[in-house]
Amino acid sequence: MHELPVILFGVGGVGRSLLQQIVAHRSLHALRYGLTLQILAVCDRDGAALDPSHGLDDETLCQIIAYKSGGGRLSSHPLGGAQGDLAGIVDIAGRAGAVVVDCTATSATIPALLFALERRYKIVMANKKPLTSDQEVYDRLTAAGVTGGDDAAPMRHLGRSRWETTVGAGLPVIATLNRLVSSGDEVQRIAGAFSGTLGYLMTGLQAGQPFSAVVREAHRLGYTEPDPRDDLGGVDVARKA
Amino acid sequence: MHELPVILFGVGGVGRSLLQQIVAHRSLHALRYGLTLQILAVCDRDGAALDPSHGLDDETLCQIIAYKSGGGRLSSHPLGGAQGDLAGIVDIAGRAGAVVVDCTATSATIPALLFALERRYKIVMANKKPLTSDQEVYDRLTAAGVTGGDDAAPMRHLGRSRWETTVGAGLPVIATLNRLVSSGDEVQRIAGAFSGTLGYLMTGLQAGQPFSAVVREAHRLGYTEPDPRDDLGGVDVARKA
Repeated sequence: MHELPVILFGVGGVGRSLLQQIVAHRSLHALRYGLTLQILAVCDRDGAALDPSHGLDDETLCQIIAYKSGGGRLSSHPLGGAQGDLAGIVDIAGRAGAVVVDCTATSATIPALLFALERRYKIVMANKKPLTSDQEVYDRLTAAGVTGGDDAAPMRHLGRSRWETTVGAGLPVIATLNRLVSSGDEVQRIAGAFSGTLGYLMTGLQAGQPFSAVVREAHRLGYTEPDPRDDLGGVDVARKA
Repeated sequence: MHELPVILFGVGGVGRSLLQQIVAHRSLHALRYGLTLQILAVCDRDGAALDPSHGLDDETLCQIIAYKSGGGRLSSHPLGGAQGDLAGIVDIAGRAGAVVVDCTATSATIPALLFALERRYKIVMANKKPLTSDQEVYDRLTAAGVTGGDDAAPMRHLGRSRWETTVGAGLPVIATLNRLVSSGDEVQRIAGAFSGTLGYLMTGLQAGQPFSAVVREAHRLGYTEPDPRDDLGGVDVARKA
């Protein structure tokens, strides 16, 4: 059995769903891939719960999911504690082969993600913000393990970063595009309605619902970004462009 | 530079397109993947052209493409010769790491494909027929390198066979489905119009064209199987079910 150590940033709706999926698919991972995903650390805004040696057990993870759903903060959790530096958590909890997963919706994770890459860990971002802050950060976050230099890896290696779920409602859009381009196809045009949130709102408005009610409903259903203004102002969809 | 040795069965429309793509994307393969695809052998119904040591050079490949487009047979080609046994060609031309690509439209390739797997080569099928002859052959063609036993590979390995282009007009349908299932999603229903050919014919009929003319046109455009009766009788679409 191959151990895959995971450090999770963000235990909101997305982070909790990921933890639930990991716990629910233990046997799929084991039987089909020979993999055990070990959750070395889960972090929220100012707290974290860690077990760098064995990974948090499933009972603890389920308990944390319930606790966070109820609005609790890891800094006050019996197994948690305060933290003010995500890179520090990566430093303490990480080990060779670790995957740092960013399920937050803040650019505050950038230093910790870059630190993880320096350590040659892998990073996975469900969070668009680190990729859309500035070009230099984007380049560093996405090029690790792809280009030459000190970080040289075989050119055909896809690199150590993934960000599939930042666009396309989690459907494998980026992987599919990469696959087509890899086989020699060229992109001529990309067309789509890139904001599912705005699509949902427009459908509601067309049906005659008041704007305020549709936005509140979309937020309740988890269709908007944590701050719905990111969707309404077009910033979220611009990040996908 | 990593060498990827390729043996090609079938130099009809599909096989020629593949050769053209390989020749046209040499620099993409080299720069992006550090790969050189070496064409060790190309085979048609009763002939073959081989260069097991260095691979056929691009000039020869282009010449073969033109020759086959004009209706020539490899058995009469200056660099070719007669062959009556594709497995024999795999035996002579193959070497460790070889990929045997089936771009024919016949089940006659089955013994050679199974032989290639015995040699631990990889196989890629654009040809549906070997996968739809009987269950035992399907199992052997698709399970190599996936399951335990003598052929044991890590369980998470996808195996040594691919057949992406047998369905979905070459779009990455199978890879996308595998990716979704791998992440724990379950298939509830698969819906689609699985015959592009029949779709094309229906559109023509709806526009008032005679059946004979639409079929001839579809055949001319390469939309039908080499024998259009495979499409018209529903056998081709049944093979995708």
